[in-house]
Amino acid sequence: MEYRKIKDEDDHDVASDVESLKGKSHTVASSNIALATLGVGSSERTNWKRKGVVTCALTILTSSQAILIVWSKRAGKYEYSVTTANFLVETLKCALSLLALTRIWKNEGVTDDNRLSTTYDEVKVFPIPAALYLFKNLLQYYIFAYVDAPGYQILKNLNIISTGVLYRIILKKKLSEIQWAGFILLCCGCTTAQLNSNSDRVLQTSLPGWIMAIVMALLSGFAGVYTEAIIKKRPSRNINVQNFWLYVFGMAFNAIAIVIQDFDAVANKGFFHGYSFITVLMILNHALSGIAVSMVMKYADNIVKVYSTSVAMLLTAVVSVFLFNFHLSLAFFLGSTVVSVSVYLHSAGKLR
Amino acid sequence: MEYRKIKDEDDHDVASDVESLKGKSHTVASSNIALATLGVGSSERTNWKRKGVVTCALTILTSSQAILIVWSKRAGKYEYSVTTANFLVETLKCALSLLALTRIWKNEGVTDDNRLSTTYDEVKVFPIPAALYLFKNLLQYYIFAYVDAPGYQILKNLNIISTGVLYRIILKKKLSEIQWAGFILLCCGCTTAQLNSNSDRVLQTSLPGWIMAIVMALLSGFAGVYTEAIIKKRPSRNINVQNFWLYVFGMAFNAIAIVIQDFDAVANKGFFHGYSFITVLMILNHALSGIAVSMVMKYADNIVKVYSTSVAMLLTAVVSVFLFNFHLSLAFFLGSTVVSVSVYLHSAGKLR
Repeated sequence: MEYRKIKDEDDHDVASDVESLKGKSHTVASSNIALATLGVGSSERTNWKRKGVVTCALTILTSSQAILIVWSKRAGKYEYSVTTANFLVETLKCALSLLALTRIWKNEGVTDDNRLSTTYDEVKVFPIPAALYLFKNLLQYYIFAYVDAPGYQILKNLNIISTGVLYRIILKKKLSEIQWAGFILLCCGCTTAQLNSNSDRVLQTSLPGWIMAIVMALLSGFAGVYTEAIIKKRPSRNINVQNFWLYVFGMAFNAIAIVIQDFDAVANKGFFHGYSFITVLMILNHALSGIAVSMVMKYADNIVKVYSTSVAMLLTAVVSVFLFNFHLSLAFFLGSTVVSVSVYLHSAGKLR
Repeated sequence: MEYRKIKDEDDHDVASDVESLKGKSHTVASSNIALATLGVGSSERTNWKRKGVVTCALTILTSSQAILIVWSKRAGKYEYSVTTANFLVETLKCALSLLALTRIWKNEGVTDDNRLSTTYDEVKVFPIPAALYLFKNLLQYYIFAYVDAPGYQILKNLNIISTGVLYRIILKKKLSEIQWAGFILLCCGCTTAQLNSNSDRVLQTSLPGWIMAIVMALLSGFAGVYTEAIIKKRPSRNINVQNFWLYVFGMAFNAIAIVIQDFDAVANKGFFHGYSFITVLMILNHALSGIAVSMVMKYADNIVKVYSTSVAMLLTAVVSVFLFNFHLSLAFFLGSTVVSVSVYLHSAGKLR
């Protein structure tokens, strides 16, 4: 139960691309000003640098997230309500967005691009990703009737393929054939790295289980790609404002989830029942990596996000060798090599 | 013991690239004549067709070889001497080369390219591959002090990398970066497809075990690449003559192996002790696939050979599902996908 809960939260966070921003946002905002001062000449280089910084931040935050999960598993069980934690993550990100905005308003003054007020036309699409995630998280409670938790971890790699396909269809961005080959390899490599002696059980998953896994992968991929579409639709609009609105709806939909899933527990034991220091750390980490995901959506894309979180998964395992005395399997080495080749192919196969 | 013996023979055959030819050789010879009649115009197309035919033949023969091994394991133990079987394989290939040559002499007459007599300068390099294989096969008896048989099957995939590296160094043929990526993936994919719950034990292999495995991979790769160099040095020389000489030395070195390894068994129980119908089938199959390897060396190259035998390994598993009710593992599906992408990359990454 405890494993599943933490995994749910993990899943929520890696995929929950409806976010805002903090500390780093300020840096990005300042570098935007620097960019404006320097002129368009160095804009290309700044873009690359910014893309690199947000990608690295996402990778590191995702790795440390998984390490926190392992740590919390070792520390014992925490019977807190996952929905309340998710709600707090959204609230924290919302607060951080506002904090970043107040600094920007102080430095730059209020402009059309950074003012908080919005139009129906701009805001009407913002609830969609949050609604998709809510729906996916609810489905998650039912899929465990068909697959066990480790099997679900394996099936989650379908997200990689669904994100690639929806990225192509919805955002109409092209990947080269070599990049597609790399993307298939990324999915195979991540799955291989996670193989263990019980993994074959996932092949016995029944048809409804497969359908649910595919639907969940599509929902998750669609939410990610749709978030990118929303954020990129107005490139000059300040990311903190976009995050604020995305996140307000995130709070609303998570409030609905609390009522649906954990009303009794919260009513009887209180909102913060079962919270511990590590729960707080995890909420903080989820909020920050949520911000990083949002940044990657703005300055890079979903493909970079998928690569970043996949590489983070491998990094986590390597770090765990030192922290928790983990043993790496042959499958892990093979999977990591395939993922590395995949990263190379993604860059070597760029369309010119 | 029986498993090891059969595996040894398997290894000998897949790698034993010192061969001659039969039935199919006649077809190739006839198509050569057809080619001469049609003129040089269609020569490019004929080359591709010939390359395709020999590659398919090698793939099918290698698959059926592995199926014979499974069959023989199911049928019970056969305590025959592997060295005598290897000797007979070489003898059979030698005989088939001569048979093919007599037909060619009848059709085309004796020419400089198809006469059997040779010069010291031509023949002096022919014993080298056979000597390398003998040395490798002898080492094989010692490596089992360091790794178990399934572990050795895993380590044998190092052959893929050694063949690629030596192909580059010795034959000075370039692969594109994408093709190198494909080659690394081929090695990872084949290993992944063979993973089972005990595979991790191979990571505990001691340093001498690793060194022996690497030396064996280099010997096997070197023998393959060197055979290609010999065969391609004189492109117009008839392949049957080249095979005949390679194979005469194969017989000689296998006779040495009988004396070193199985002298007592042969002296006490006879040359053919322990032979059965399936042994005969396996010898026949080994001879034919040896011929196919030789053809691939002449008309394609070592890289094609490695791809062909790797794909054969996967085909075998799929066929075994129907023949022997095998269950395919998740690792097999992942490995097969990686190998398929690798085949695609090899073709997509061709240097222009």
